[in-house]
Amino acid sequence: MNKRQLIDQIKQKQSFLCIGLDADITKIPKHLLKKEDPIFEFNKQIIDATKDVCVAYKPNTAFYESLGAKGWESLEKTIDYIPKDIFTIADAKRGDIGNTSKMYAKAFLETLNFDSVTVAPYMGSDSIEPFLEIENKWVILLALTSNKGADDFQFFDNGTDKLFEKVLKQSKKWGNDKNLMYVVGATRPEMFKEIRSIVPNSFLLVPGVGAQGGSLSEVCKYGMNKDCGLLVNSSRGIIYAGNDENFADAAKGSALQIQKEMAILLGEFLK
Amino acid sequence: MNKRQLIDQIKQKQSFLCIGLDADITKIPKHLLKKEDPIFEFNKQIIDATKDVCVAYKPNTAFYESLGAKGWESLEKTIDYIPKDIFTIADAKRGDIGNTSKMYAKAFLETLNFDSVTVAPYMGSDSIEPFLEIENKWVILLALTSNKGADDFQFFDNGTDKLFEKVLKQSKKWGNDKNLMYVVGATRPEMFKEIRSIVPNSFLLVPGVGAQGGSLSEVCKYGMNKDCGLLVNSSRGIIYAGNDENFADAAKGSALQIQKEMAILLGEFLK
Repeated sequence: MNKRQLIDQIKQKQSFLCIGLDADITKIPKHLLKKEDPIFEFNKQIIDATKDVCVAYKPNTAFYESLGAKGWESLEKTIDYIPKDIFTIADAKRGDIGNTSKMYAKAFLETLNFDSVTVAPYMGSDSIEPFLEIENKWVILLALTSNKGADDFQFFDNGTDKLFEKVLKQSKKWGNDKNLMYVVGATRPEMFKEIRSIVPNSFLLVPGVGAQGGSLSEVCKYGMNKDCGLLVNSSRGIIYAGNDENFADAAKGSALQIQKEMAILLGEFLK
Repeated sequence: MNKRQLIDQIKQKQSFLCIGLDADITKIPKHLLKKEDPIFEFNKQIIDATKDVCVAYKPNTAFYESLGAKGWESLEKTIDYIPKDIFTIADAKRGDIGNTSKMYAKAFLETLNFDSVTVAPYMGSDSIEPFLEIENKWVILLALTSNKGADDFQFFDNGTDKLFEKVLKQSKKWGNDKNLMYVVGATRPEMFKEIRSIVPNSFLLVPGVGAQGGSLSEVCKYGMNKDCGLLVNSSRGIIYAGNDENFADAAKGSALQIQKEMAILLGEFLK
C-alpha cells in the first residue's frame, strides 16, 4: 500500500487506529482452545468485528514465535485473512547485517506479504536499506519507544542530538516519507514537537495509548500533520476487552470508542 | 549450558569455533533439493561433519523465517539434532518491550530450548531482562557489530562514552559474565582492548572472521582472556566450502583448518 492509499483510508474511515494482534494463547477466551487453530480463530473474529473502524493491523511476531512452527502458521493465515485495503505491519523489530536483512525483507514483505515491518536501528544503514528496496513496502524504524528501557540509550546525547534524533536524521539519507515511518511512543507526547521538526511529513506509528498510559489527544495535538501522519496502536485494550463468547463484540465496542474519538480529533486538527 | 561447561568444552576440543548455520535454500547443493526437508538435511550433514571441531552452532533465524512455517520447522529439527554438549545460539537479534520480550524469551530459550539468544540493545532494560531471568541461559547483546552500518550509531559519542561502550557499561547493571555475552565484530580488532577493560571476564561472540575480512590472530591478541572468552563465528566460509555431494567433507576441512589455528592460538595466549 502506498502513502496516498493509506491517507485515503484514514479519511474514509475517519480513523487512524492500528490494532495490535498480539494473540496470547494464555489470554484468549477459553472456548477457542477447542478449535484447531485457536490463535487464528481469535484473530479472525477480531478482524471481522473491527475491520471497518481501523486502518491497520499489527501482529507482533513474538506472540506467534512463542508457539513455534504452529504459531508461524497462525501468522500466515492471519495475514492472508486481513482485507487488502487495510495496512499491515509485521511488528518484528528486526535488524541484522546486509545479507541477513535481505532474508528478513523477503520473509516479511514477500513471503508473508506484509505492507511494512518494524526495524531496529542499532546496526545502521545495511540493516535497513534492503527493506527499502522493495516497491510499495515500508520500513517502520524504532525511534523513541514507549517502554521504560527507552531511557537507557535513546536519550544518549552527543551535545547536538539525542540518539533517537540522530536516528531520525540519519535515516532520511536512506529513505523518505513514502517508504519510511517511525515508531514514537505515546508515553512522551512532549517529544512529538521536536520529532515533527525533523520528519514533518512522515507517518508515525504510535504505541503506548491505553495499557501503557499515553493520551490520544496529546499525541494528536503535537504529532498530527496535514495528512494526519499518525497510526495509533492499541492492542490489549481492544483484543482483550472481553473474555467470553462475546469477546469480538467487546473488541468492536472498544475499537469503536477509540475511532469516534479519532474522528473528533481529525475534525479538530485537520481543518 | 553454564560458563564452566562452556570453558571445559573449549579446552577439551581446543576450539572456540562457532559455526553459523545460515542455510540458504538458493545456495545449498542442488542434490539436497529432492529431500523432504532440504534445509534440515543440509544442517544435519554439516553438524555430523563438524561437531567434533566446534563448540557452538548459531542458526540465524532470518534464513529460516524467509521460508515461512516450513523454515521454522527446519529450525526446530536442527536445534533438536545438535548434540547437547554443544552451545547453541539463536541469532535472532530480538528486542521489544517487557511483556513481548518475555514471549521471545519463551520462544527461543524454552520452546526451542536454545542456550542463548542474540538481543538488540536499543530498547533498553526491559527488552533484555526477561531473557536473563531464565536459569542457565544466556543473552548475547549486540555491542559493536561487524557490518558497515555499525558506524552510523554505535560510535555516537556523549563525550565520555561511545554508544557501544555505554551499552556494555549499562548492561552490567542487568546481568553478569555468567548470563550475558556480547557481540563484537572481528572487523575492528583494535577495539577489543577498550572492550576488555569494561567486560574483562565476559564471553564475546565474534562474527566477521572470513567472508567479512576480520583476522583471527588479531582478535585473539586483543580479545582473549584467561578463560579464552571468545566464540569466533564462521558461517559461509565453512558451510559453503563445497557445493557438491561432498559438501559436508569440504565443510569439515574448512572447520578443521580454523580449529587447528585456534589450538595454536590457545597455546600461545593461554599459557
